Amino acid sequence: MKKGIWVLNGPNLNLLGVRRPEIYGKTTLKEIQQELEGRCREEGVPLVFHQTNHEGVLIDLLHEAREKAHVVILNAGAFAHTSIALRDAIEAVGIPVIEVHLSNPQAREPFRRHSYVAEVARGVVAGFGALGYRLALEAALHWAKEKEASS
Amino acid sequence: MKKGIWVLNGPNLNLLGVRRPEIYGKTTLKEIQQELEGRCREEGVPLVFHQTNHEGVLIDLLHEAREKAHVVILNAGAFAHTSIALRDAIEAVGIPVIEVHLSNPQAREPFRRHSYVAEVARGVVAGFGALGYRLALEAALHWAKEKEASS
Amino acid sequence: MKKGIWVLNGPNLNLLGVRRPEIYGKTTLKEIQQELEGRCREEGVPLVFHQTNHEGVLIDLLHEAREKAHVVILNAGAFAHTSIALRDAIEAVGIPVIEVHLSNPQAREPFRRHSYVAEVARGVVAGFGALGYRLALEAALHWAKEKEASS
Amino acid sequence: MKKGIWVLNGPNLNLLGVRRPEIYGKTTLKEIQQELEGRCREEGVPLVFHQTNHEGVLIDLLHEAREKAHVVILNAGAFAHTSIALRDAIEAVGIPVIEVHLSNPQAREPFRRHSYVAEVARGVVAGFGALGYRLALEAALHWAKEKEASS
Amino acid sequence: MKKGIWVLNGPNLNLLGVRRPEIYGKTTLKEIQQELEGRCREEGVPLVFHQTNHEGVLIDLLHEAREKAHVVILNAGAFAHTSIALRDAIEAVGIPVIEVHLSNPQAREPFRRHSYVAEVARGVVAGFGALGYRLALEAALHWAKEKEASS
Amino acid sequence: MKKGIWVLNGPNLNLLGVRRPEIYGKTTLKEIQQELEGRCREEGVPLVFHQTNHEGVLIDLLHEAREKAHVVILNAGAFAHTSIALRDAIEAVGIPVIEVHLSNPQAREPFRRHSYVAEVARGVVAGFGALGYRLALEAALHWAKEKEASS
Amino acid sequence: MKKGIWVLNGPNLNLLGVRRPEIYGKTTLKEIQQELEGRCREEGVPLVFHQTNHEGVLIDLLHEAREKAHVVILNAGAFAHTSIALRDAIEAVGIPVIEVHLSNPQAREPFRRHSYVAEVARGVVAGFGALGYRLALEAALHWAKEKEASS
Amino acid sequence: MKKGIWVLNGPNLNLLGVRRPEIYGKTTLKEIQQELEGRCREEGVPLVFHQTNHEGVLIDLLHEAREKAHVVILNAGAFAHTSIALRDAIEAVGIPVIEVHLSNPQAREPFRRHSYVAEVARGVVAGFGALGYRLALEAALHWAKEKEASS
Amino acid sequence: MKKGIWVLNGPNLNLLGVRRPEIYGKTTLKEIQQELEGRCREEGVPLVFHQTNHEGVLIDLLHEAREKAHVVILNAGAFAHTSIALRDAIEAVGIPVIEVHLSNPQAREPFRRHSYVAEVARGVVAGFGALGYRLALEAALHWAKEKEASS
Amino acid sequence: MKKGIWVLNGPNLNLLGVRRPEIYGKTTLKEIQQELEGRCREEGVPLVFHQTNHEGVLIDLLHEAREKAHVVILNAGAFAHTSIALRDAIEAVGIPVIEVHLSNPQAREPFRRHSYVAEVARGVVAGFGALGYRLALEAALHWAKEKEASS
Amino acid sequence: MKKGIWVLNGPNLNLLGVRRPEIYGKTTLKEIQQELEGRCREEGVPLVFHQTNHEGVLIDLLHEAREKAHVVILNAGAFAHTSIALRDAIEAVGIPVIEVHLSNPQAREPFRRHSYVAEVARGVVAGFGALGYRLALEAALHWAKEKEASS
Amino acid sequence: MKKGIWVLNGPNLNLLGVRRPEIYGKTTLKEIQQELEGRCREEGVPLVFHQTNHEGVLIDLLHEAREKAHVVILNAGAFAHTSIALRDAIEAVGIPVIEVHLSNPQAREPFRRHSYVAEVARGVVAGFGALGYRLALEAALHWAKEKEASS
Repeated sequence: MKKGIWVLNGPNLNLLGVRRPEIYGKTTLKEIQQELEGRCREEGVPLVFHQTNHEGVLIDLLHEAREKAHVVILNAGAFAHTSIALRDAIEAVGIPVIEVHLSNPQAREPFRRHSYVAEVARGVVAGFGALGYRLALEAALHWAKEKEASS
Repeated sequence: MKKGIWVLNGPNLNLLGVRRPEIYGKTTLKEIQQELEGRCREEGVPLVFHQTNHEGVLIDLLHEAREKAHVVILNAGAFAHTSIALRDAIEAVGIPVIEVHLSNPQAREPFRRHSYVAEVARGVVAGFGALGYRLALEAALHWAKEKEASS
Repeated sequence: MKKGIWVLNGPNLNLLGVRRPEIYGKTTLKEIQQELEGRCREEGVPLVFHQTNHEGVLIDLLHEAREKAHVVILNAGAFAHTSIALRDAIEAVGIPVIEVHLSNPQAREPFRRHSYVAEVARGVVAGFGALGYRLALEAALHWAKEKEASS
Repeated sequence: MKKGIWVLNGPNLNLLGVRRPEIYGKTTLKEIQQELEGRCREEGVPLVFHQTNHEGVLIDLLHEAREKAHVVILNAGAFAHTSIALRDAIEAVGIPVIEVHLSNPQAREPFRRHSYVAEVARGVVAGFGALGYRLALEAALHWAKEKEASS
Repeated sequence: MKKGIWVLNGPNLNLLGVRRPEIYGKTTLKEIQQELEGRCREEGVPLVFHQTNHEGVLIDLLHEAREKAHVVILNAGAFAHTSIALRDAIEAVGIPVIEVHLSNPQAREPFRRHSYVAEVARGVVAGFGALGYRLALEAALHWAKEKEASS
Repeated sequence: MKKGIWVLNGPNLNLLGVRRPEIYGKTTLKEIQQELEGRCREEGVPLVFHQTNHEGVLIDLLHEAREKAHVVILNAGAFAHTSIALRDAIEAVGIPVIEVHLSNPQAREPFRRHSYVAEVARGVVAGFGALGYRLALEAALHWAKEKEASS
Repeated sequence: MKKGIWVLNGPNLNLLGVRRPEIYGKTTLKEIQQELEGRCREEGVPLVFHQTNHEGVLIDLLHEAREKAHVVILNAGAFAHTSIALRDAIEAVGIPVIEVHLSNPQAREPFRRHSYVAEVARGVVAGFGALGYRLALEAALHWAKEKEASS
Repeated sequence: MKKGIWVLNGPNLNLLGVRRPEIYGKTTLKEIQQELEGRCREEGVPLVFHQTNHEGVLIDLLHEAREKAHVVILNAGAFAHTSIALRDAIEAVGIPVIEVHLSNPQAREPFRRHSYVAEVARGVVAGFGALGYRLALEAALHWAKEKEASS
Repeated sequence: MKKGIWVLNGPNLNLLGVRRPEIYGKTTLKEIQQELEGRCREEGVPLVFHQTNHEGVLIDLLHEAREKAHVVILNAGAFAHTSIALRDAIEAVGIPVIEVHLSNPQAREPFRRHSYVAEVARGVVAGFGALGYRLALEAALHWAKEKEASS
Repeated sequence: MKKGIWVLNGPNLNLLGVRRPEIYGKTTLKEIQQELEGRCREEGVPLVFHQTNHEGVLIDLLHEAREKAHVVILNAGAFAHTSIALRDAIEAVGIPVIEVHLSNPQAREPFRRHSYVAEVARGVVAGFGALGYRLALEAALHWAKEKEASS
Repeated sequence: MKKGIWVLNGPNLNLLGVRRPEIYGKTTLKEIQQELEGRCREEGVPLVFHQTNHEGVLIDLLHEAREKAHVVILNAGAFAHTSIALRDAIEAVGIPVIEVHLSNPQAREPFRRHSYVAEVARGVVAGFGALGYRLALEAALHWAKEKEASS
Repeated sequence: MKKGIWVLNGPNLNLLGVRRPEIYGKTTLKEIQQELEGRCREEGVPLVFHQTNHEGVLIDLLHEAREKAHVVILNAGAFAHTSIALRDAIEAVGIPVIEVHLSNPQAREPFRRHSYVAEVARGVVAGFGALGYRLALEAALHWAKEKEASS
């Protein structure tokens, strides 16, 4: 498989495992990355994994994924609630995006209830902590294979 | 395993595969049930599967699940947006609930954006069509085993 | 004509003629049914007529009408303002629905101004009391004949 | 019968049959007028029929109808959503008004959901296209006869 | 006394004493019923006591109470905040209703602040836990006697 | 005095004395005009008095008053609540405007609470019925004399 | 005349002539009082005139006016926008109240646009500066005479 | 019993029995006080009873009750809807408060629907007229005895 | 070229150059018309230019332009913010409309921020004063030529 | 220095050190006063310090400060959120006001987020507990010296 | 001419010609740049042209333009709707800004209707696709010459 | 002291002293930095001082401060009103943050009234211009010493 699966993570996710573990769990982002890489290696699918606190970098990465990814798994963190530019980038690149949230935003502050990303994401997985990335990956693998098959 | 996984489906889901297939897909609820049953049989976990158009029946079932289920997978359909009684029932039974939606409600009409169920669900899976039930089941199995182990 | 016209009535309409006659008039639901049956007999069109205080029953009936009715005349009572499940059922069954209200909801309390049913109904008749059912029936007969002709 | 039925039409209805036929149908306003005139002739009731794009003219006509009409059938077009002056005129003239809309405003843009006219109209008929005028006329004839009888 | 006092309880109240005792207390609904029955026996007033998770059943019961009760004590649970049909049923049956809530809804989530039932109830008692039923019963007995006296 | 006082009246005020006398009183607009003319004659101030149901005519008159009036007394009727064009006309002509309302709009329907005219009027007189015109005239005469003196 | 006219002034009006003269003018409250007293002396009507920064005192005075005044002229200052207690006091005393504002609240900050006092005042005079008190007094004298005549 | 029950009444309640008897009933505040005093005398519990139109006095009294009362019964009148200071005082004194309203605020104007007092009151009794004070007193006696017992 | 460009101006634009020159500039509407006519003469395109304070006349003109104009340049003034009838007329005539505003409505009062015209206009030019008409004309000429070419 | 610094404290601040110490700290208002007095004595600046639960008294004190204070430090407590009269008093007296809050209102209930006082205060210090008074005093001393220097 | 015209483009505009051509057209940003450069060369005005997906870079560029540009043409993309920092930068640099949008935001999703940029831009051009840049350039050249002339 | 105090400044603050001096004063950010450095040198506390127009850089700096600072003084500029990512970063790093604003945002445009930063800041200082940084520094030194003492 030439195209792969990109996993993009937004602001403050580098602190995962440190920041408010009662809400976000103790697993670090590094550990999540390793687990996903292992699973992708099994399937022979390339995995690209990034974290950034910069909205602009996230948009640049989405644009880059346009030619290189079958599916993007995106945990945009707080940008999900404020960035229309990110929303437009997702629409522009035209490949399926799975939005992941560690916690369940609907169960928290009102300003976390609306997600610009969710409006254009194909699927949403929220509230499962680190397990959510694995669920998203299974769906991404499923779609990537469909694409490969139909291309 | 004595306790199992309950999958409860709300109004209009009996029409799945018939109603607006461009949004909800062509798989019928029967087919989803069979697929989930197969997967549970592999794991030796009892599966209970219901559909009803009656809010009261859904609440009665949740109360019954209280003693019999480790995890509930709930596709409450439109009741998710209007039923505080259902929300209270979930809180009252005190077992983890995974909310499933076939389509992504955030990408549809404004009145589908808020979910009373999501406020008290532990996890949310939306937008994956029939595939979403399988993702939810994997998470449910994961939690059920944790519970068995710690009980 | 094999398929007919279904007239479905929601909560509290069984009290028609008794409840607040200054708003809803003195005619009982029984009398309305008899008048509509007479008119349908003239036209040779089967009429099915129900009243229920249960949202779930109303949804079940709409699903049943899917194969048996050309047109549904629906007075959903207060469910019109609160039931997205009912709205989805109408959309799902895909046959034309005429919404009837005895009084004019726009001229009453603010919470009666919005109708989920009206959003998906093809036509709306409101404020004519019992006469409204007869107007709706004329339209329903008109459409039923068109359907028969084109089938 | 000395007093008659007045049918007043507001802005852009002169383009009926031309403007967005997928929403408003292909029948012209002229054809509707002729059909209503035929029906009134049968009943021996005078019919007055007007169309104007001027809110002020519509108010002047309503004032004039005060002494000359039993019932007014009013398709105020977009004025229904914006004109409190029209609402006050209806209240002032004190004769029953039936509001007609070709399409169903509840199923369109949000700014079409509220109608100042509906707040003071006795009955509302919406979504039936040209057929709606005929339904309104039947109701108007019914009320006109009651008035004649009781005068 | 021929007519009595009806006590109707809505969704999730069957879990009273089990569900979130820190908010709702440890007394079960059975114990409340027995206490109220004892008090009514002293006064020679018939008591009818029901609980249901079905909105439709609650409406049916209110209709039935119309001929059989002097006063209705209603703890509609979450339906208080969402059911206009219930509100209409109370208005329709025309007998005084006392709304009871175990907790004080004004001190909880925003969506519990508005009650359709309260809009048409004659009296409201909230926040007293099981004691609230007894206070409501005293008021109901007071009114029932007034009615008996004046009938 | 060369410039005078203009009294402009908006929609439905021609029905004064006829329309809802319990709110607007029994005095006709003709009688008000005569009373104001008498008072102006005493003071030697020209009075111009108009009524129209057309927003456009009201704007044309305001433009004309620009060179001919010291003060405008304006009862814009329902246009006060909806016409930004009227508001702009008042700002554009740059002479003091006194807004008069027969009833007190703050004590009526919510949509009568906001007045675009009041935002740019110098003074407001509301709720005094026909007496309000006389109060407004006294203020207008007061200001007109100040202007004459300072010119 | 035994009963008189009461003029009650609320918070910060003691600073009149000092506070922001570009909005409120240079006349002091003392000067206004003297002018009104002169006018009342001509008519033989007793005048009572108060200013207070205390909401409670204003309510006490309104209660006292209940037996002693034909009409109350009330400039409640900022309390007009915030005090429901004052609103209730006006309703409770049951005598006509004229609300006066020196400036035109509709032309200022949004929080000055709504007045609880205006909702229950019979008449409103705003934007005329000190002249507004005189206009209000004329109306008050007019109503006081009518009352005397009819008593 | 050393500590007693304090009954505090806010603005306009001194007019009880006079002001709008169709809403508030004919019983005067004096009569209510006497009835409550009689009941407390039976139980040997001291009763303190006040009415004031001054928000500041009400807060001073609440502070004073801090050391002297087991329970406060508070009818804050219109202050319930506007006074955050009163709300804070209730929170600060830390003893249980029962909010009483003669009428049912939920059934009246929208601005009476929210109560800052209710947010921090333990119990609420509304809509029972003078009878409501008696119901509140029974609850207060119940709680006072519990406190005595546990102290 | 047979069809031309129509420039339609709404309320108060006849006062251009006079009304608030600090916002709208000193150029009169006559001067703008002459400049546009000069430019159109160069291109051999007919120009029609109107101003009216009447919403109805503006709608009549738009209907007339339907057969006679390639492009309409519309400065609807305040009607842009209030007239749904104008919006419907633009949609009905089906030719491209360029909305022009002399000032930038987004930088002024909140009620000028929404434009019903902008919702259906193809292009918007705002804030350039008289220069804005020239920019709009260049775009209109561009589109007119495209139409001529493709017809 | 003749003029001094006034420190005015609103409702419930007399309970400081007692009321909810986890939010407001354990320091009493007396201790704060003494600390500020010590600091002012060092600088030779008169200090006036008051606390009241009465909005009217706070306004009276602000009026008095008008001639006697260079700067006012104001902790208006809950009145900050509800009293437009207080806001107007600050504007009227025209001397710089520093708003102090012990806790950070932005981090608490929504109804504490808006402050009428903050709209007209020159500076705001919030969330520092008793330390906040000292920070405010330093700023006040700074401004007082500037005023002395420039007078 | 020493100072020039700066054209700044925000997020996702690098995808122009690729992203949703049915809305944004097929012209690439490169082509637009070349066309504008040609036009500026004719006029002897330096042109600076940038695109970035980073809000911070856009602000840095605006600060740099402060000394180097007569006019800025800004297509801020989605940042227009969310970035107050960008708005403040425009205000801070104090040179005229022309806001350009390829599509007409008023005709799209509600969250595109408000533009922080438009609040401080001098002119707005929207809905003309690539042609809009040319119109903006003409206006910019016009203003740049005025500035040169007056400097 | 090993850990120090970090002062972080957001967008457009590099223009301080240049941008709108009537609101923000004439002191430059350089001058503020020097004054704070002098004060910290006296106390032997390390000071780190940054300004950036990039939200991502501000978040990176906050993360870095996590191990190196006792207290952060943060003037987030406009990001305070729009950046939930910044809010989350403050929560995540878990050290006390003092929010500083040069002007008083409550006294400016509505969109400056809400601050995501203020929701999680421990203290807020606003409206004192450059003096505000010094007040914040005193508080920061106070807290830093407490921390040193308790560590």
